[in-house]
Amino acid sequence: MSDEAMHHDVFTVERTYRAAPERVFDAWADPVKKRRWFAEGEGWNIDSYDLDFREGGFERTRFRFGDGPPMTNDTVFHDIVANRRIVCSYDMTRSGQRFSVSLATLVLERAGSGTRARYTEQIVLFGQGRDAVEQRRLGCAELLGRLAAALGE
Amino acid sequence: MSDEAMHHDVFTVERTYRAAPERVFDAWADPVKKRRWFAEGEGWNIDSYDLDFREGGFERTRFRFGDGPPMTNDTVFHDIVANRRIVCSYDMTRSGQRFSVSLATLVLERAGSGTRARYTEQIVLFGQGRDAVEQRRLGCAELLGRLAAALGE
Repeated sequence: MSDEAMHHDVFTVERTYRAAPERVFDAWADPVKKRRWFAEGEGWNIDSYDLDFREGGFERTRFRFGDGPPMTNDTVFHDIVANRRIVCSYDMTRSGQRFSVSLATLVLERAGSGTRARYTEQIVLFGQGRDAVEQRRLGCAELLGRLAAALGE
Repeated sequence: MSDEAMHHDVFTVERTYRAAPERVFDAWADPVKKRRWFAEGEGWNIDSYDLDFREGGFERTRFRFGDGPPMTNDTVFHDIVANRRIVCSYDMTRSGQRFSVSLATLVLERAGSGTRARYTEQIVLFGQGRDAVEQRRLGCAELLGRLAAALGE
C-alpha cells in the first residue's frame, strides 16, 4: 500500500423539508423509520439492520444489491443534540474489504415551519478517488430525498 | 446552535523515524507503550487509560491538566493494517461538553531502514474555529515527537 492509494475529501449536501426539525430528527432516531428510508430500497436486500441511537451507540447494516457481494455499513454515534445535530463515523466494506471511513455531520435548522438540513461528510477512501466521492455525494443526496418521501413530501 | 458554530477542517502532520515500521506500529498497538507517549506527559494527570487495539475496538482516556477540568478522549478503531495503516475516529470533551470529533488516518511507509509517518486528521469543532485547528495540529505534532523520544530517537 502507498499513501497515494488513500484519498481524503469532503462534501456537503443540503435539503429543505416542509416537516419541522422534530419530525426530521425522529426519522433518524427511530429504528423502524430509519430502516425504511435509509436501508430499504428497490433492488437492495437487507440481511440485517440494527440501530442503537444514542451517543456511543451504533448502527449496523448488512446488505447486498441484488445478487451482488455482501456489504456492510457500521456506524458509531459520537454526538447527538436532539432535533439539531447528529455526528457519527461509519465505515463500509464490500466482500469483506473496507473501502471507506467517514465522519458525517448532520445539522438541522428551523426554516419557517420547516427544516433546513445540512449534511457534511469528511471521507477517506482506500484505492478510490474523486469519482467515488462524487458517487457517495449523489448517494447521500438520494437518501435525503428518500427521507423527504418518507415524510410524505 | 447555528451551523456557523461548527467548523470542519483538515490537517496533516508528517514525521520520519529511524525505527522500522514494525517498531513504530507496535508503539501504537501496545497499551503500555501507547499510554506512555500518548497519555502521560508533564503536568497531565491520567485518571484512566484503556486500549483495546483492534478493528471495532476502542481507546478511552480520562485526564486533567493539573487541577483543570476533567477531559475525555474516546476513540474507535475503524481500520487497521499491521505496520501500515490505522484509521480511527475520536471525540473529546471538557467538563462533560464535547468540543470536537475527528477522523484520523495514520499511514506508515518504509523509508530506507526507517519509517515515514503521515497523520491526517479530518475534524469538526463545536464553537471553535481555525485557531483551535492549529492548536490541534501542534498538539499532534508534539505527540509524534513524543513517540520519537519513546523510540529512543
